[in-house]
Amino acid sequence: MLKNYRLTKAEKHGLSHFDPKDTGGFASKEEIQDEFQHMERKLGHLQDKLFASKTNGVLVLFQGMDCSGKDGVIKKVLSNLNPLGFRAESFKAPTSEESAHDFLWRTHKAVPAKGYITAFNRSYYEDVLITRVHGTIQDDEAATRMKHIRHFEKMLTNNGILLIKIFLHISPEFQLEKIRERLSNPEKVWKFDPSDLNERQYWSSYIDAYEDVFRQTATKYAPWHIVPANERWFRDYVVLQLILSSLEKLDLSYPEPDIETRKLMEQLHVSEPPPQSS
Amino acid sequence: MLKNYRLTKAEKHGLSHFDPKDTGGFASKEEIQDEFQHMERKLGHLQDKLFASKTNGVLVLFQGMDCSGKDGVIKKVLSNLNPLGFRAESFKAPTSEESAHDFLWRTHKAVPAKGYITAFNRSYYEDVLITRVHGTIQDDEAATRMKHIRHFEKMLTNNGILLIKIFLHISPEFQLEKIRERLSNPEKVWKFDPSDLNERQYWSSYIDAYEDVFRQTATKYAPWHIVPANERWFRDYVVLQLILSSLEKLDLSYPEPDIETRKLMEQLHVSEPPPQSS
Repeated sequence: MLKNYRLTKAEKHGLSHFDPKDTGGFASKEEIQDEFQHMERKLGHLQDKLFASKTNGVLVLFQGMDCSGKDGVIKKVLSNLNPLGFRAESFKAPTSEESAHDFLWRTHKAVPAKGYITAFNRSYYEDVLITRVHGTIQDDEAATRMKHIRHFEKMLTNNGILLIKIFLHISPEFQLEKIRERLSNPEKVWKFDPSDLNERQYWSSYIDAYEDVFRQTATKYAPWHIVPANERWFRDYVVLQLILSSLEKLDLSYPEPDIETRKLMEQLHVSEPPPQSS
Repeated sequence: MLKNYRLTKAEKHGLSHFDPKDTGGFASKEEIQDEFQHMERKLGHLQDKLFASKTNGVLVLFQGMDCSGKDGVIKKVLSNLNPLGFRAESFKAPTSEESAHDFLWRTHKAVPAKGYITAFNRSYYEDVLITRVHGTIQDDEAATRMKHIRHFEKMLTNNGILLIKIFLHISPEFQLEKIRERLSNPEKVWKFDPSDLNERQYWSSYIDAYEDVFRQTATKYAPWHIVPANERWFRDYVVLQLILSSLEKLDLSYPEPDIETRKLMEQLHVSEPPPQSS
């Protein structure tokens, strides 16, 4: 199923090929609930092995329009991970110190060490999206930055970082629905930012900028995944499956104890063979 | 119940007054299970309000002997928090850059901003514990550092940071049991560090150093809590209750929408009164 949402080369990148309302043939959340919980437990075990082995790091990068559910997917899919080996990093408008550096500086500091999983809530891709839509940078600068991104991602993956890039795909109608929902709920209205309404005017420019991002930066070593996100439960299901299947491919295992530890295991008589049945 | 485990002034600081096997009168995990889940949900709601209001930050600091369960309590009690507003910070042996700075430098960088919760897995208290036990610093230097700690904690609390300091209290027999457990489980043996066995020799020196820490740094604004930790389920229960009751005292509420947002709420007709019943 996952290959339906994966982009690895320069073809079929139009977002119009992807349906934000897609639910992969499932009718409702109830149909996938058991499998979801099963996958959550599996992910927990794999995280433990990842942390123990320290052979790889995992960076899950989320992009998407306002209200596409970046916060929600991190909360729903990743909040069961052991926080000692997982963290979420949100990138808002850059500070003056961050702006005074190259565009990869602030995110590079936050990439996971081996053994760790990090989720990026927005990322360095904002520097070829919002900036381009609002004319802060021109097309040639955007192309240069995307080349730097390819090199940067190649370097990360060469260093054992598994990179999972996810675009949460929603329709403009769905976004408006979500904005109304925020405005009508006293416990959610604090999330509303009046500029979100303003950004809606630029919807098609954002689509253009995203499609160029997919054309320029969807690679074999760091593919993009276009995840349907109108139906939140299906979004969570696909994202969990994506992360799980990527981790499974790493073929992780617990490290073998060293000689000193093996000796202690014997001294403490804890590695005695089980009693023989007569 | 919580007051049984709280230290705020210079009396009754001997750890011998506290029973590591204490379960507060409960016979088993099953007795508190429902309340535990109820408290978890409450904590989730309070975290959301904390994040929305940005009036305070929360720093939960864990100290304790090896195998006292610092990792476990963070995983069991705090992994349900929304990772966008929560992170765990583990402090291992300092790097050369960290050692070249004052002892509060590396932890100060990691304190939570307002709106956020951070758990410290070990902390600046190591700099008056392990260092003192192994003679890297002398008593007068330890006293000076603890004075700096009081001042630092006063400054943090003045700035709206709620500081919850927790000592996980186990018995030496229990520690040995846990070490044996690690050594006999192929999926846990990677957690075993041969130096843990060596450190056991210094048990009573550690107790002395901890008792001095409690005498010098248990204050009204930043009390210590001695949490019985032999029974993991009771440890989790007390820690969750502690964090919850501290957050409840903050009297958090969602921020009111500003004028611009209130206008939009009307324009979008989302704040219509419910239809009158005839």
